[in-house]
Amino acid sequence: MEIGQHISQRYNEELEQIRNKVLQMGGLVESQTKKAIKALLDHDQDLAKDVATSDQSVNQMEVDIDEECTRVIARRQPTASDLRLVIAVVKVITDLERIGDEAEKIARYSKKLAKNPNVVDTHSELSHMSQLVLSILHDSLDAFARLDAEGAVEILGRDEKINKELDKLSRLLLTYMMEDPRHIKNALRVSWCARSLERIGDHAQNICEYVIYLVKGKDVRHTSLEHIRSKYFPHDIDVSES
Amino acid sequence: MEIGQHISQRYNEELEQIRNKVLQMGGLVESQTKKAIKALLDHDQDLAKDVATSDQSVNQMEVDIDEECTRVIARRQPTASDLRLVIAVVKVITDLERIGDEAEKIARYSKKLAKNPNVVDTHSELSHMSQLVLSILHDSLDAFARLDAEGAVEILGRDEKINKELDKLSRLLLTYMMEDPRHIKNALRVSWCARSLERIGDHAQNICEYVIYLVKGKDVRHTSLEHIRSKYFPHDIDVSES
Repeated sequence: MEIGQHISQRYNEELEQIRNKVLQMGGLVESQTKKAIKALLDHDQDLAKDVATSDQSVNQMEVDIDEECTRVIARRQPTASDLRLVIAVVKVITDLERIGDEAEKIARYSKKLAKNPNVVDTHSELSHMSQLVLSILHDSLDAFARLDAEGAVEILGRDEKINKELDKLSRLLLTYMMEDPRHIKNALRVSWCARSLERIGDHAQNICEYVIYLVKGKDVRHTSLEHIRSKYFPHDIDVSES
Repeated sequence: MEIGQHISQRYNEELEQIRNKVLQMGGLVESQTKKAIKALLDHDQDLAKDVATSDQSVNQMEVDIDEECTRVIARRQPTASDLRLVIAVVKVITDLERIGDEAEKIARYSKKLAKNPNVVDTHSELSHMSQLVLSILHDSLDAFARLDAEGAVEILGRDEKINKELDKLSRLLLTYMMEDPRHIKNALRVSWCARSLERIGDHAQNICEYVIYLVKGKDVRHTSLEHIRSKYFPHDIDVSES
């Protein structure tokens, strides 16, 4: 799939610009997520505050890109893969913006957790889960940048691991809460953070689905992974490793 | 604002059909949400199961409407308010689908809550919060159906009430959890349900923002309510009552 094969040089540039802006927005959201996670794991209040302030730029980017997409549709009347690109972008940026929201939530709880003595030790579990989520987010942005549908399908298989980690963490938190009522507040905060991490993973997976749609022209949402693989990628990819 | 003023009768019908399908999808999602809430409040396991099965139709509707929107853009090359309608629809159905997801989550926790003896009494708080959320959802779908931007702005002011209710409910749940560790599991379940209710309210508010965009041609996301009111609706609406 290639973008930028139009006779009008200006049109090529417009599509390329939209794509670049999405990548830029993705980069910002990824860095926000990383910071929020670092604030959570290191009890870093300053970093947590930092995340809250960059949210505005993400929001503005969403509005700008949306406007540009509408303009391109109205002026260039794109069809086929160009139109799919624009529609995919409109969807992807919604997920990106919501990832930014979740990062902000994590930062907010991190601030509270950092202020309170932390007797609820879930550092290694949170750290493990964060790594999974960050890699899914990074790889889906990468799949979007390279228009890599195979990569996107591989990522779709990974959320099961995140769910398992969330389940384990929730069980651990429950034991802390039952052990001593004074643990409950902090355990709940950790639990909200973990849910936000899970949601970031979900949004990243949505992005992967749009990448597949964009490249293959097929809407694979609400379709089982087995079905997607056998139908659109019959010959390739070993997804046994993460 | 009027839709269906084109020389091509077929084009009018296509736009009208898309709008109708969105309303149909909205109706289904609203009924799912109502059922999930009823299952939660009445400890009705059968109803809870019912909600899980209707999720597939919502998902299919999302995919179908998306396809139709892409088709209309490619074939009819809409501009101005027609294009805004199509773009708004693409966004609205994403929120509708996610409302369906949240309703399913509520139903899932309701099943577990119904199975376990319920010592955590939050019936009146949950019921109050549910009423607020259902009215926001209903009214935003109504605003979309009637392309009523004034109505949409009025709804945007209401989420503060939901947040207050959520805060009160969370405090109450905390006391139950601290009182007796055996309450913790059920209190957590109620708490997840309340978060899902809050999210349904958020998605409904997103729909309102798209209605304003559609009618006024202005993207009001991430804009303060005061600013929206003074800029786009300078002369009207008393929003002091809910």
